[in-house]
Amino acid sequence: MSKPTLSKIAATLGLSVATVSKALKDYPDISFATKKKVKELAEKLNYTPNSYAQSLRNQESKIIGLIIPEIVHHFFANIILGVVKAAEKEGYLVITLQSDEKYEVEKKQIELLLNKNVDGILISLADNTVDHKHVKHIKDSGVPVVLYDKISKLINCHKIVIDDEKAAFDATKHLIESGCKKVAHIRGPLKPQTTIDRFKGYKRALKHFNIEFDNNLVFETKNLSFKDGKEIADDIYRNHKDIDGVFAMTDLLATGALVRLQELGLSIPEDISIIGFSNWFLTKITTPRLSTVNQPGYEMGEAAFKMLLEEIDDHKNNRNVIYETVEIPTKVIIRDSTLKH
Amino acid sequence: MSKPTLSKIAATLGLSVATVSKALKDYPDISFATKKKVKELAEKLNYTPNSYAQSLRNQESKIIGLIIPEIVHHFFANIILGVVKAAEKEGYLVITLQSDEKYEVEKKQIELLLNKNVDGILISLADNTVDHKHVKHIKDSGVPVVLYDKISKLINCHKIVIDDEKAAFDATKHLIESGCKKVAHIRGPLKPQTTIDRFKGYKRALKHFNIEFDNNLVFETKNLSFKDGKEIADDIYRNHKDIDGVFAMTDLLATGALVRLQELGLSIPEDISIIGFSNWFLTKITTPRLSTVNQPGYEMGEAAFKMLLEEIDDHKNNRNVIYETVEIPTKVIIRDSTLKH
Repeated sequence: MSKPTLSKIAATLGLSVATVSKALKDYPDISFATKKKVKELAEKLNYTPNSYAQSLRNQESKIIGLIIPEIVHHFFANIILGVVKAAEKEGYLVITLQSDEKYEVEKKQIELLLNKNVDGILISLADNTVDHKHVKHIKDSGVPVVLYDKISKLINCHKIVIDDEKAAFDATKHLIESGCKKVAHIRGPLKPQTTIDRFKGYKRALKHFNIEFDNNLVFETKNLSFKDGKEIADDIYRNHKDIDGVFAMTDLLATGALVRLQELGLSIPEDISIIGFSNWFLTKITTPRLSTVNQPGYEMGEAAFKMLLEEIDDHKNNRNVIYETVEIPTKVIIRDSTLKH
Repeated sequence: MSKPTLSKIAATLGLSVATVSKALKDYPDISFATKKKVKELAEKLNYTPNSYAQSLRNQESKIIGLIIPEIVHHFFANIILGVVKAAEKEGYLVITLQSDEKYEVEKKQIELLLNKNVDGILISLADNTVDHKHVKHIKDSGVPVVLYDKISKLINCHKIVIDDEKAAFDATKHLIESGCKKVAHIRGPLKPQTTIDRFKGYKRALKHFNIEFDNNLVFETKNLSFKDGKEIADDIYRNHKDIDGVFAMTDLLATGALVRLQELGLSIPEDISIIGFSNWFLTKITTPRLSTVNQPGYEMGEAAFKMLLEEIDDHKNNRNVIYETVEIPTKVIIRDSTLKH
């Protein structure tokens, strides 16, 4: 006979793994009847939980896990800092992992963190993550999870986001209000959701000002890279001389366009205005300095930890958790690559 | 009577805390006589170690600690990534903390990590750290420690560094070999050691080419900031028109100087060459693109973890550790802000 596991007990009794696990540990939110059933079967199956792991699991580890798609990225580095600082204040330490935007890696890292008995997990989903069983598995293990930045509407848990659509609306609105008549948008591929939402915000702003949407003014790039920005600038210069404003979905794209358009002899913002997205450090050192939308990584990291801590407390005190989605406000930062109004 | 502690037992017997702790845990490298002495006194004093903590301490936690002076910094973000990736490959997870370049914070964070029973600690010392008792305390606790990047020669442990002096020599040499006759240096304040070593490398290169050192060509800045670089550029333009080459000790200073000198109407590199240090992401997007020295953060993080793992293994297998200092090679990256030769 193979070794009995929690999941076998759960399957046999028609319960969730989390319930079985809680029953064996005498959690107060499990009924006496269920506990009795579970313990009797566990005894019959000669189920012996690893007592070391168990003792750990009953204790708080005061460690949380943080999964980041990309560490070497101004925005995400700020997220790490926000989480680490907020956690330290509350006596928690943070294990950080980078998923490389890969679903398979994300899945493994969740297992690693659960095996280390972390008290909670923060995740920004990888771009190619479509299946969400691994996130549900965290919840089933009785471990709180908060999604931040790149979330899925299909997962029921606490979430921290920015309103990408509104932020993009504001950026485009600034271009139009400062006098731009033909505003282009440089966007990314269809996924992730942030791309879609920023594109939507751009379109909504046009509509708001009764400007007809023109698909020829939308430029799609693959890598959101500096080089991509330069290539789109070449295209704009050659084929769309009438464009006088550009909303790029990342600062890197915006910077590429800004550098290339100047090389081609255009003046920024006199001939063409450019606004980016994120407020990377680099936006302050371009010539002219880049207008952009501030994406508050530090505040987001801080808020994500606080939300996780709340849920950890709710679990401990056996309170019901009502899941919330919290929006961190963004702000248009007007520098020198767009006209004043 | 106050609660007896390891340190009281240690003080009474004239032993180190680490020895007492190891004796109580029956470590093989402690003599039978010492173990006997320690255990008898512990019993007499009614010393009961926290058994939960003890059971943890005897087990490997497979978690290491990483103290970083500044997370939101291209170089250090790469260090985190190098450590995290190398650790994950070997089944270790990484708790990251930011010391904010503060000694007091660093001290507290070491305690936090030791309390979490990490298997080892990696530290880059804060700029204002002069006392090293806290690092010695890690060693005394029997926990391996590796210093990386900002180290102290006064601490006896494994170290991972770059040769700042050689790297600065190479950068200055490139300027001279490409035709610069009057090479200035923009440096930082007297501490940390990296500033001193880069300044030394600059001077050695001048000497190597029989160029007399001129203190008027050395510009000291406080914050190593973009703004500082711009201010030095103003000074150079007003008072030192004959300078035709600049070696700045950071990319940010170099970028500030590059932007400002162009605003003042100078051509780079035709009128004046500029080379930075670190190979930040931003160096690829300046106009012209900045020549610099590559400071390999990822490789350094990777190497630091490997060294730590080696020492963890040495401890486990009761092998003597011979401390080493490993240098990660740097490389001059020639882009468009310096002349070709």
